[in-house]
Amino acid sequence: MNDRIQNLRNKMGGLNLQGMIISNPINIKYLTGIEAEGVLLITRKENIYITDSRYIEYVSNTVTPFDEIVVDDFKNISKDDYENFFMFCENVGFEENYVTYAMYKKYMHIYKINNFIEAESIINKLRMIKDSEEIENIREACRITDECFTFLKEYIKPGMNEKQIARKIQNYYMDKADGVSFEPIVASGENSSKPHAIPTDRVIKDNDIITIDMGCKVKGYCSDMTRTIFIGQPTEEQKRVYNLVLDNQEKSLREMKDGASIKDIAKIVTSNFALQGYDLVHGLGHGVGLDIHEAPFIKETNDNTLKENMVVTDEPGIYIPGNFGVRIEDTILITKDGQEVLTKSRKYI
Amino acid sequence: MNDRIQNLRNKMGGLNLQGMIISNPINIKYLTGIEAEGVLLITRKENIYITDSRYIEYVSNTVTPFDEIVVDDFKNISKDDYENFFMFCENVGFEENYVTYAMYKKYMHIYKINNFIEAESIINKLRMIKDSEEIENIREACRITDECFTFLKEYIKPGMNEKQIARKIQNYYMDKADGVSFEPIVASGENSSKPHAIPTDRVIKDNDIITIDMGCKVKGYCSDMTRTIFIGQPTEEQKRVYNLVLDNQEKSLREMKDGASIKDIAKIVTSNFALQGYDLVHGLGHGVGLDIHEAPFIKETNDNTLKENMVVTDEPGIYIPGNFGVRIEDTILITKDGQEVLTKSRKYI
Repeated sequence: MNDRIQNLRNKMGGLNLQGMIISNPINIKYLTGIEAEGVLLITRKENIYITDSRYIEYVSNTVTPFDEIVVDDFKNISKDDYENFFMFCENVGFEENYVTYAMYKKYMHIYKINNFIEAESIINKLRMIKDSEEIENIREACRITDECFTFLKEYIKPGMNEKQIARKIQNYYMDKADGVSFEPIVASGENSSKPHAIPTDRVIKDNDIITIDMGCKVKGYCSDMTRTIFIGQPTEEQKRVYNLVLDNQEKSLREMKDGASIKDIAKIVTSNFALQGYDLVHGLGHGVGLDIHEAPFIKETNDNTLKENMVVTDEPGIYIPGNFGVRIEDTILITKDGQEVLTKSRKYI
Repeated sequence: MNDRIQNLRNKMGGLNLQGMIISNPINIKYLTGIEAEGVLLITRKENIYITDSRYIEYVSNTVTPFDEIVVDDFKNISKDDYENFFMFCENVGFEENYVTYAMYKKYMHIYKINNFIEAESIINKLRMIKDSEEIENIREACRITDECFTFLKEYIKPGMNEKQIARKIQNYYMDKADGVSFEPIVASGENSSKPHAIPTDRVIKDNDIITIDMGCKVKGYCSDMTRTIFIGQPTEEQKRVYNLVLDNQEKSLREMKDGASIKDIAKIVTSNFALQGYDLVHGLGHGVGLDIHEAPFIKETNDNTLKENMVVTDEPGIYIPGNFGVRIEDTILITKDGQEVLTKSRKYI
């Protein structure tokens, strides 16, 4: 059986789960490599992937005998089969943040499940720790993101609008990578004061501030980087805020390593910001992998520690409504003794 | 109060719902015009939109006094407030196909709900019937889609690959509309035999068959059109299959009107295909609106009838594995006495 499914089975044992239904396509891709529409059942005896006629051929070609995955067309499965899959399972796990209430009821019904247990966290925990292949994909996505930023520094000129720059980023990533990992944010002037700005028709002017938040995908794995740049000269206030954000981004980043308390890292930034009268209105960072936002979430309410081979962002920001905002973000690999910053674009003004 | 919320309240009365929680952002946009992150509570006394500090300013500027929507920042809401919202509601509705099991449990807990009722269908039913503003947006999206197809017929040349054409479609729609309504399908040669093909690096050759399935958005409203084209000459088999699909698309389309049985329309195609030894492997069509796929679904298991001002697709397809496929699709407005085909690009070979 492949390692990832084997690891999941080990975790299931720890929770006294005899079966599990995996519905989230990202988790299915993680565990099996399959990218299709279907559901993965882990039972005591087998791993079964149920799909429909559109995907049977592709899926059968994707899985190897080593995966030990039985591929079924749902049209060939009887009511008896459904009811037998989990027959001897007392507890069956499911993904409570992906499965809708309607799916939950349907699964309970067709599989005749005894105890249906919220168990998404066991997959999230597996996915937090990246193996070398995953790290190489993220590293490559970060490298392409740095190249895109180098390109943008030459490309962006007064007179262009935000949408035009955002589209250029999308095209760059379609050319050089497997597309964007999320819709790029290009927020200029007063728009930069919105943490989640959507690119508008606003035209870039001389002496504008621009926040660019972007990333791409390589084999499904994401990169995530934000830089705030100046077209011309920043004001004194902008310089002060920029340096406060940068200083805290680098201070918090340097604390990141295997065993470091997530809560403590977030506190560095929130308390330094508070001292200057600013709020950190969003989390300090998040895990990056097959999802652009995944565990672990870097915030004061997270009591866990960082672990070797996690990949997370560090992205403090200060937003002054109606005026401007600054956010600086890197994607970071946690190592045994410290961290490796995977996005390397220059950050000083 | 705005008409759409008023209509929803009337439907709620019919189901004996005294309250409703709307979480799906598309439904919130439909009912209020708000595009943000938050939740809409309909109670006996008020309509309340709960969001966070990032969106408060935007949302407060979007809603009008006429909407009668109270906008709250969740940070200013106490446990008591939450428990009071639905205090005198025996039954509260929710969207069972959007709300995850985890959200369901959270809502039950924080709002202290007595009976939480699956009620998504009442909004879906409202959304099925389009008003004149919605129809104008879809009409415009279809017009731009026709223009894009006209452009593509000139643009596509042997030597280009599928991804390149798909990207051109995306850029066209970013320029002329509010972007794509779904990732375009460009499936050439043997790839056209996959109903849900993803654009690949396959290069277009002389005498290739290409299926292009595409649509754009205008003010959130979608268009959806598929054409199968030939670069050069189709084979005799391709001609035969093409004409069978086209003939059935037009036959089924002509039956569409207010009061027509959905089941009967789907049966026209499935039985004609069966007579020639082919299967219709997907539904015949679906509603189109703020979602690219929404109610009503045009298939044999749907016992409902079409109604005036529904907008649906008609998209029969035949797929011969490893060889080629043909799909032809239009977006169609149902009228009192018949139908108006909103996508007008030519369909004959």
